[in-house]
Amino acid sequence: MLLNQITIVGVGLIGGSLGLALKKKKVVKSVVGYGRRRGALHKAVSINAIDRYCLTLPKAVKDADLVLLSTPLGSFEPLCKMMAPHLKEGAIVTDAGSVKGDLVKSLSALLPSYVHFVGGHPIAGLEKSGVMSATGVLYQGCRTILTPSPQTDPDALKTVRALWESVGASVSEMDPYDHDRILSFVSHLPHVVAYALMESLMHPIVASLNPVAFSAGGLRDFTRIAASSPEMWRDIFLANKKAVVNSIDVYQETMASIKKKIIKNDAEGLIEIFKRANSIREQVAK
Amino acid sequence: MLLNQITIVGVGLIGGSLGLALKKKKVVKSVVGYGRRRGALHKAVSINAIDRYCLTLPKAVKDADLVLLSTPLGSFEPLCKMMAPHLKEGAIVTDAGSVKGDLVKSLSALLPSYVHFVGGHPIAGLEKSGVMSATGVLYQGCRTILTPSPQTDPDALKTVRALWESVGASVSEMDPYDHDRILSFVSHLPHVVAYALMESLMHPIVASLNPVAFSAGGLRDFTRIAASSPEMWRDIFLANKKAVVNSIDVYQETMASIKKKIIKNDAEGLIEIFKRANSIREQVAK
Repeated sequence: MLLNQITIVGVGLIGGSLGLALKKKKVVKSVVGYGRRRGALHKAVSINAIDRYCLTLPKAVKDADLVLLSTPLGSFEPLCKMMAPHLKEGAIVTDAGSVKGDLVKSLSALLPSYVHFVGGHPIAGLEKSGVMSATGVLYQGCRTILTPSPQTDPDALKTVRALWESVGASVSEMDPYDHDRILSFVSHLPHVVAYALMESLMHPIVASLNPVAFSAGGLRDFTRIAASSPEMWRDIFLANKKAVVNSIDVYQETMASIKKKIIKNDAEGLIEIFKRANSIREQVAK
Repeated sequence: MLLNQITIVGVGLIGGSLGLALKKKKVVKSVVGYGRRRGALHKAVSINAIDRYCLTLPKAVKDADLVLLSTPLGSFEPLCKMMAPHLKEGAIVTDAGSVKGDLVKSLSALLPSYVHFVGGHPIAGLEKSGVMSATGVLYQGCRTILTPSPQTDPDALKTVRALWESVGASVSEMDPYDHDRILSFVSHLPHVVAYALMESLMHPIVASLNPVAFSAGGLRDFTRIAASSPEMWRDIFLANKKAVVNSIDVYQETMASIKKKIIKNDAEGLIEIFKRANSIREQVAK
């Protein structure tokens, strides 16, 4: 057994899938769930994602060796404030949030000095949500990034790494701001881009022609991305504002340069860009 | 039988699939293929997409009641010039190109007055290519747009409509420029957007962090779009330059307005946009 008790704060797709996998692999003696909706927690018990649940946070975390935050990003700070006085000495708090950077700093600062914070981010399924979508194999082969700072306790870091590795994740460590820069480009920007495309279809110069009725495969892929939770993406964009705005700026510049090539009939320049895109496809599509 | 002979110029995915379906439904007595590569034409005969083939254009079209152009857009003008003197009186020329507008005008002008041109565009599969991807059911339930002008011969228009309907397509008619405006938003813009995203990943501020190694589902969908044929998209963007540039302008404005909302912490404004995107998803995803 790696740990005696882990408390999962927010038992949805991410938290529930971790609970399922930990219980299946018998990594933790007891998995406790915390949430606000009794119905969802009851379901989590019934599918064996958690052993039991608490509807009050202090009770849920007081005996926990490790607490995982897997609620929407916007709730991390209030939750840390609420749980801080109730955590036991040596407890580890980690998270599954899509943004690190400043958030990691501010969460650490909210916790007592005898509690260890380790920032984490399993890069896994974001289109579905809720505990009923949870699966014990979500983290099998999934990339999880941990973002230690020079202040991070090395043993706590080891424990969090072992936890994710025990459920099959492939763990990388990196600077919290590097994490945010990378994710802004490979995850946050693609979502901004998809939302902007959907919104463009409502522009007066095209909306009256009912373009959606003539949509082809290209558009359909974008709509899948744009179907993700509005609240989750609002939280992510605002929490990772600086990196997201930077990535939008790079994107707008790139788009302007492609537009210029189209205007100038620069056929060769366009082909070069399109071929580079194909080569990225080959790296990603595995 | 709707027609005695149809000649398919360019027997790839689009032309080959039409041939397969026409022969299966016995709509046309004889399907002749024209192309430059004997190997591909031989394959087309072997899968029953065409009855026979010619490697010289005059021979291929001289007895045709209807000629379908299903080569890349950039070749339409030279092909029309070459075939013009060899077409018989009353022959119909139609195309399967993704751009209409000016192209429809210039192709009509290249043909003799006793030949009828009807612009067409089956909105079907663009990720695969080649006759070996052809299928007799590609046009079943597929939307095909015809773009008659006031000069278009009504009987020729009826014949082309009947041809597409005979293979299961649902046919709409619209102004060639409306077609280009709609397609620029629902097909061409999504491809520009995907190419620009791939290109952005190579920007110095992120490339050295090897972002592609950390790509999540969001990016993967884009790479599928960006994997389409560079030559085909170059032709489309240049042939539909005006509408594509307009759609890029609308898109850049929309993106700038989302960026502004992120900078201003306009959480409600973001949620509104994201919810509208979800509602488009529901219209498209059927």
